[in-house]
Amino acid sequence: MSELSRFNLNPPNRILMGPGPSNIPPRVQSAMTAPLLGYFDPYFFTVMDGTMSLLRSVFQTKNKLTFPISGTGSAGMEAGLGNFLEPGDVAVIGVNGFFGERMVEIASRCGAKVVRVVAEWGKTIAPEVLESALKAEKKVKLLALVQAETSTGVLQPLTEASRLAKKYGALFLVDTVTSLGGHEVAVDEWGIDICYSASQKCLSCPPGLAPFTANDAALTMVQTRKHKVSSWYLDLSLLSAYWSEGASARVYHHTAPVCMVYALYEALAVVVAEGLDARYQRHLRNGAALQAGLEAMGLTLFAEKGYRLATLTAVRVPPGVNDARVRQRLLNEFNIEIGGGLGALKGQLWRIGLMGHSSTEQNVLLFLYALGKLLAEEGYKVEPEVGVAAAAQALRKK
Amino acid sequence: MSELSRFNLNPPNRILMGPGPSNIPPRVQSAMTAPLLGYFDPYFFTVMDGTMSLLRSVFQTKNKLTFPISGTGSAGMEAGLGNFLEPGDVAVIGVNGFFGERMVEIASRCGAKVVRVVAEWGKTIAPEVLESALKAEKKVKLLALVQAETSTGVLQPLTEASRLAKKYGALFLVDTVTSLGGHEVAVDEWGIDICYSASQKCLSCPPGLAPFTANDAALTMVQTRKHKVSSWYLDLSLLSAYWSEGASARVYHHTAPVCMVYALYEALAVVVAEGLDARYQRHLRNGAALQAGLEAMGLTLFAEKGYRLATLTAVRVPPGVNDARVRQRLLNEFNIEIGGGLGALKGQLWRIGLMGHSSTEQNVLLFLYALGKLLAEEGYKVEPEVGVAAAAQALRKK
Repeated sequence: MSELSRFNLNPPNRILMGPGPSNIPPRVQSAMTAPLLGYFDPYFFTVMDGTMSLLRSVFQTKNKLTFPISGTGSAGMEAGLGNFLEPGDVAVIGVNGFFGERMVEIASRCGAKVVRVVAEWGKTIAPEVLESALKAEKKVKLLALVQAETSTGVLQPLTEASRLAKKYGALFLVDTVTSLGGHEVAVDEWGIDICYSASQKCLSCPPGLAPFTANDAALTMVQTRKHKVSSWYLDLSLLSAYWSEGASARVYHHTAPVCMVYALYEALAVVVAEGLDARYQRHLRNGAALQAGLEAMGLTLFAEKGYRLATLTAVRVPPGVNDARVRQRLLNEFNIEIGGGLGALKGQLWRIGLMGHSSTEQNVLLFLYALGKLLAEEGYKVEPEVGVAAAAQALRKK
Repeated sequence: MSELSRFNLNPPNRILMGPGPSNIPPRVQSAMTAPLLGYFDPYFFTVMDGTMSLLRSVFQTKNKLTFPISGTGSAGMEAGLGNFLEPGDVAVIGVNGFFGERMVEIASRCGAKVVRVVAEWGKTIAPEVLESALKAEKKVKLLALVQAETSTGVLQPLTEASRLAKKYGALFLVDTVTSLGGHEVAVDEWGIDICYSASQKCLSCPPGLAPFTANDAALTMVQTRKHKVSSWYLDLSLLSAYWSEGASARVYHHTAPVCMVYALYEALAVVVAEGLDARYQRHLRNGAALQAGLEAMGLTLFAEKGYRLATLTAVRVPPGVNDARVRQRLLNEFNIEIGGGLGALKGQLWRIGLMGHSSTEQNVLLFLYALGKLLAEEGYKVEPEVGVAAAAQALRKK
């Protein structure tokens, strides 16, 4: 392959409004090109310390074990389940979307007995059904819920579930992949024992890391397991010896993805500099404006009213409109990426992300303008500007 | 945390001559800041295609299943063992260093019966001992060797082992973490069934990805397993549906670490542009010069003569010299990182990497000058310039 014939890496500038990744701030982008260091370099140790400390602020926790797993959000999910479930353990898992199903799949591979607590996709999981599942088993090791179901746009309430986990002596695990840094996640206050997220959503860091936290009670369970964790790569007892408190005590496990850690460090600093409350408010405001615009256009939001994510809005593709063609045109004519439906909802849903750096007024307005224009051209009966006008009004009033 | 009090990310410029990461070319660094795309973006699909194609060139294979695993080299190891070993399977694993031991640990967690074929650290594993291990078992599923033992600097010959694997009907797995892109790795010609590496060594991409390849025979074994692979994240049957041949057939698994894939793409393009043979020769030449310099200083190379890696040289810390202090001074006074000994060799070895972009004449010369100066200052009886002079002579003659 000659140098000249080689494909030249020159990606287009997309507006990332899909289910993640979101766009990343210039500061985060630059961080990746900071000089590369070895995984035992004293300077890198200070970056690790800073990353752990910022991550604790964002997770709102004092947990010692708080660091990024060297893999994407799904690796975080696998670490969260695989370290705590042993063959024969019982896990109660809430399933109201694609990522709840993924937890079931991963927990099953751990050899756990999985009790699925199902709600219709688009709805939340009620505490009563969780409690009857917990009550029906002799001993439940772990109760797992997805706070922000990326497949449906549902925001799952956690307070009652946390109380129930404690009542029945189960660890409480929460997936915050599409919420951390966008919706509030208060690990300690809410009594969450194990929590993971992903770098590329509301934290606006490139994909590749899974922020993770677990409290001492959970860590003790890992250290007193009967069988070793089946994954050596994700074994928290080994990982926590590298991501330890004191630099002098750090033990080599695997080579840390140094540039990605730089990026996460910087992304977390951006989050903390904005302020958590201000950031949640920004997400809520822009999400509400988007949803107002979509409803003004006569479209149907998928998630139950009152439990809608601001970070990810799922909306039904209107009858007669070609899902794939609209998404293609958004990409080609406006450089806007949105997501389609997952699993059974393929072809029926659009999933519009407003996460982190992508959650802006201009993205809301441009997207609704673009969608109005395209839907009118695709034969859907709509006043093209009604959506953007409704969103503008919502933005002005808040 | 106020914006002003925040730790300012400003890593020093190190010369990375440890066991990895190596320094990365500016082109690779810039690639990481190319505009971020979604994992289903048509443009990203072309980057995936290019990455798979370049990776096939570098692995010297036609294997369809050839792509980067979304984790570091150890995730590659876990994918390589975990997908092919089921509970009760027999694995014969060569152990002559730290990373052979790691393979044993990971294979054991798969529930496999592991037969360790041990050689003294610093020596190669002889075909005869491999054969007696293979012969002693009724059915061996997999024979695994480390081509380049990063802990000892040994280059393991593979030809005979490959023939034996075939003779006894075992899959042949080779760890090329510290060789791919530095020493020759000819997957198809050498009859390797499963092979993995790491991005941050002789490919000079940042750490975070594990290049991986397996042939159809191996992939069929994954698809006909009795039990599911315990790791969902590393399950090749799922991963290969995303990293598939035709873009139209790609199935979502996890969010690809897009910026890291950009960097790997560019790093592989740099390797292919240099030419594999030219690259191997450069590594051999610089490695030999370094080793000539070290021996001229009276130091003892750790690996068996004739089987020394060019990419990583292990040398004994001379008696009376403080290992940690010398490495500290190299870092502080010259910005040079080298590695110390692993496991039982802690405090006794220095491990000097000359990998990828770090394998240069100037690094060889600077390092030997620096080491000569420091050793003389630390009381070791040596003519400080004898090493650098010997290396210069070796470089001039080749």
